[in-house]
Amino acid sequence: MNIKIFINGFGCVGRALAKIIVEKRDVIEKKYGLRIEVVAIKDSRGAVFSSEGLDINDLLKLIEYPRSSIGLYEPYGRMDIGLDEIYDQCSPDIHVELTPSNYDGGEPGISNVLYALKRGANVVLANKAALVYKFREIMGIARKKGLVVKYKATVMGGTPFIDILLSLKTIHVSKIYGILNATTNYVLTYMHRHLVDLDEALGNAKSIGIAEKNPIYDIEGIDAAAKLVIMSNTLGIPLGINDVMRTSLRNVSLKDIVDALRKGEVIKYIAQIDFEEQLAEVAPRRIESNNMLAGIDGLMNAVVIEHEYGNIFFSGKGGGCRETASMVLEDILSASMRGV
Amino acid sequence: MNIKIFINGFGCVGRALAKIIVEKRDVIEKKYGLRIEVVAIKDSRGAVFSSEGLDINDLLKLIEYPRSSIGLYEPYGRMDIGLDEIYDQCSPDIHVELTPSNYDGGEPGISNVLYALKRGANVVLANKAALVYKFREIMGIARKKGLVVKYKATVMGGTPFIDILLSLKTIHVSKIYGILNATTNYVLTYMHRHLVDLDEALGNAKSIGIAEKNPIYDIEGIDAAAKLVIMSNTLGIPLGINDVMRTSLRNVSLKDIVDALRKGEVIKYIAQIDFEEQLAEVAPRRIESNNMLAGIDGLMNAVVIEHEYGNIFFSGKGGGCRETASMVLEDILSASMRGV
Repeated sequence: MNIKIFINGFGCVGRALAKIIVEKRDVIEKKYGLRIEVVAIKDSRGAVFSSEGLDINDLLKLIEYPRSSIGLYEPYGRMDIGLDEIYDQCSPDIHVELTPSNYDGGEPGISNVLYALKRGANVVLANKAALVYKFREIMGIARKKGLVVKYKATVMGGTPFIDILLSLKTIHVSKIYGILNATTNYVLTYMHRHLVDLDEALGNAKSIGIAEKNPIYDIEGIDAAAKLVIMSNTLGIPLGINDVMRTSLRNVSLKDIVDALRKGEVIKYIAQIDFEEQLAEVAPRRIESNNMLAGIDGLMNAVVIEHEYGNIFFSGKGGGCRETASMVLEDILSASMRGV
Repeated sequence: MNIKIFINGFGCVGRALAKIIVEKRDVIEKKYGLRIEVVAIKDSRGAVFSSEGLDINDLLKLIEYPRSSIGLYEPYGRMDIGLDEIYDQCSPDIHVELTPSNYDGGEPGISNVLYALKRGANVVLANKAALVYKFREIMGIARKKGLVVKYKATVMGGTPFIDILLSLKTIHVSKIYGILNATTNYVLTYMHRHLVDLDEALGNAKSIGIAEKNPIYDIEGIDAAAKLVIMSNTLGIPLGINDVMRTSLRNVSLKDIVDALRKGEVIKYIAQIDFEEQLAEVAPRRIESNNMLAGIDGLMNAVVIEHEYGNIFFSGKGGGCRETASMVLEDILSASMRGV
């Protein structure tokens, strides 16, 4: 069976996805009988598309193309092109939404996802903001139309963590807490190890590409809050991003770290939802060093789920382009094989 | 939508499942639009069935009925009844296989599951042995018939661990290792804490109902080996139970424990598959005390998955009747809502 996918957004995750598809397409076809065809890729300024599917050479060249310029690619590129034409020409089975998360309203992710559903495509997202603002609406429309929306890559992007929550449909979860943002965990780990202040640690993270130039979503807890919103809604419990209290990581000084270390503790940037107390927050917290979260360093993430039968502890890579893309690909497969 | 389920096997997990269904049926109907009807329950000597579904009073009384005697229950009980008549009368949508795992060939689980598929029922298992001996055959038949076979309860029974493996379809897993048997982990923890030998620890485990009277499947590593077989096959890599090398927990003396503790280590009963080396084994191993597995005590289980992008660590309750039943119920829901 051929699965026609449309990659909307072609930054680091999109390019990693294209690369993994090139590498693994034949194995996937052999193992699962699914042939993944990339029929369209769009960036912020243009798109390439071919209703037959782009071939391996096209994909390899596009991966190396400068940012926001794939519309110039010959012969399939077109600048200034809208979703209408892409859908009319290519009829994708799966819309992969990889535009950046925008926490000032959620666009263009929201409109793109709603458009895809309107046109009858299943949706796979790494973009968090669309779900943060419109989780229930998006899921409701998908359900009515018999489509699926998958989003494993949005939380602990390098792991299938969301699937654990999806398998707790009948189990009462009282609390979830953990380390959900890789950038700030890297920064905190660096502060503890090198005894430097936040700005120096952040400078290091920027220099090696772990932190963005303006990492406000990370440092102010917005990214972690967004993940809490997605996790809560996955469990069927509404939570808006403005319901999450946030304390900036900027509040952590080198002195705080030294004080904590002297007492055999560490400081972690903890995101938590307490469903009993109806409390959601992201804040720096002191953790005793024998707590399992204390050992989760660098780019690792970890979550504790307290439920009616005990605790689940889960840790894995928080993100990374290829890691995130690998979970997008898992969702593409699971959307294609639903019911299996 | 009504979902008619047939519970085949009515020991501690079956009874816990019936109880959870009584408690949560209305919530599940409200939240997911699924009405779970128990149309039949069978134990080793008889069965109760009603094509309309047993009501709450029936279920509550049956939960308290003596073992292997539900066939005497009035007016729905019947002794000495076969699957044919149950299927003819009740046409279950989902067959829930909870007979005990038998590692001397896998019966009656295998025949029961194959029968269910032949009759067009989806299958949910807590019975491991049927999958251990016939994983590929069972999955192949299900796929051909458009049915699903779910088995979350078979590995780390109180958690949705299997779903993690199912979401690693395109990711190369090189190694899986961990603590997969709750009984032996309890026994080992007891030996470390009280500095007693295996038989004394086992006596304690039996006295509080954690170990069976004859816990050979646990102590000889057969249960853990069975779980490795299911895990490997879930990843699409064939492995038979006889391919798993086993070293009995009986090899661990109190002296070994004391020696390990003196060196800041602990002994754990580790199950592992190394896919590169094509090696699967269950054996007592010394673990340094700063290893995350060293802190997994008592009835907890934990697994490390080494894959191409890093490690996933997962821990949770290994079993327990209600915990296992809760995962059976999750599978019933996911089989009912497939494609959603």
